[in-house]
Amino acid sequence: MEFSSKLLENAVYEVSQLPGIGKRTALRLVLHLLRQPEAQTKNLALALQNLRSEIKFCKKCHNISDTELCEICANPKRETSLVCVVEDIRDVMAIENTGQYRGVYHVLGGKISPMDGIGPSDLNIATLIEKAKAGEIKEIIFALSSTMEGDTTNFYIFKQLEPYAVITSTIARGIAVGDELEYADEVTLGRSILNRIPFENSLKSEQ
Amino acid sequence: MEFSSKLLENAVYEVSQLPGIGKRTALRLVLHLLRQPEAQTKNLALALQNLRSEIKFCKKCHNISDTELCEICANPKRETSLVCVVEDIRDVMAIENTGQYRGVYHVLGGKISPMDGIGPSDLNIATLIEKAKAGEIKEIIFALSSTMEGDTTNFYIFKQLEPYAVITSTIARGIAVGDELEYADEVTLGRSILNRIPFENSLKSEQ
Ligand SMILES: [Zn+2]
Ligand SMILES: [Zn+2]
Repeated sequence: MEFSSKLLENAVYEVSQLPGIGKRTALRLVLHLLRQPEAQTKNLALALQNLRSEIKFCKKCHNISDTELCEICANPKRETSLVCVVEDIRDVMAIENTGQYRGVYHVLGGKISPMDGIGPSDLNIATLIEKAKAGEIKEIIFALSSTMEGDTTNFYIFKQLEPYAVITSTIARGIAVGDELEYADEVTLGRSILNRIPFENSLKSEQ
Repeated sequence: MEFSSKLLENAVYEVSQLPGIGKRTALRLVLHLLRQPEAQTKNLALALQNLRSEIKFCKKCHNISDTELCEICANPKRETSLVCVVEDIRDVMAIENTGQYRGVYHVLGGKISPMDGIGPSDLNIATLIEKAKAGEIKEIIFALSSTMEGDTTNFYIFKQLEPYAVITSTIARGIAVGDELEYADEVTLGRSILNRIPFENSLKSEQ
């Protein structure tokens, strides 16, 4: 693509760095912004920059939060000894949306993926094990998506928890294997939390 | 969607204002930026703001340009009496890409669309008629997409040109009716420029 303007070329390049957005789509989005009032572009740029520079994570569960403790961890009605382990904040939003869950979360920030160079130390795993060691956790529910990376991560954490008296379970696989958690409908996802099974059983059923 | 952070909610809202991007996709894009180095978000925000605040248009053809005259208008080898009328810069890029065209362009900035409240005075039509009046134009090629709005715009300009000795033509409709110009393959688009027909003939063939 040859551009008649360096400014335009640069903007299209930066937008096309976003996942799933090619050069053509980027050009369409940028030309749209040019037809809108200048305030829209300003607001967009500001919102992204503010988020990126001022982003905070909950001290306890690593959820994105504007305060030290997220609303869920700060809520005295939540059962803090029941911890649901998820990949990212979208999964927290999806589970909260079901209205079925009264425990708290632990956001890993990803899955173990040797192919992408993501090891256990790149994720929020150590803080989870510390909580278990301190006797703060009665039960851990694994709610990662059922991909190879998800299973590897579950199993790694499961092994790390062995010295401690923690019940482990996984959400019921009502959700199709390989499907992303965040796209599940609320009823299925809510039920899969209620019908969670001991983690050991999930290993057996896969053999 | 309930967000655990106002900063996050705000960023997702602004991104979802872009055409074709829903809340879910916006959240995915924003979370992606959070996992990348801060410089990427900074560069994106800066590129969009710079473009929007410093954008310039060619004095002669209204193409986006960083200089007073765009590269095409400033090129002494281009035939300035042959003017191709297009909707936006993407069409200029598509036609330039064919290597078949040696004239110049006139970028309207849209199409007449009463439904969207876009009338002739919202587009760069007056400057085109002035050029014709000044005797600077021998031939005008209409290259708008063949939608109702495109046809309306062609016809409006055609009528405005009647007092002046200007040949009008439209690009050959090798391109499927209703298709966007920018998605046509180079060969088809190049040929449709070479095989352009007098505008009056295009009216007859549609009756
Ligand atoms: Zn929290
Ligand atoms: Zn120009």
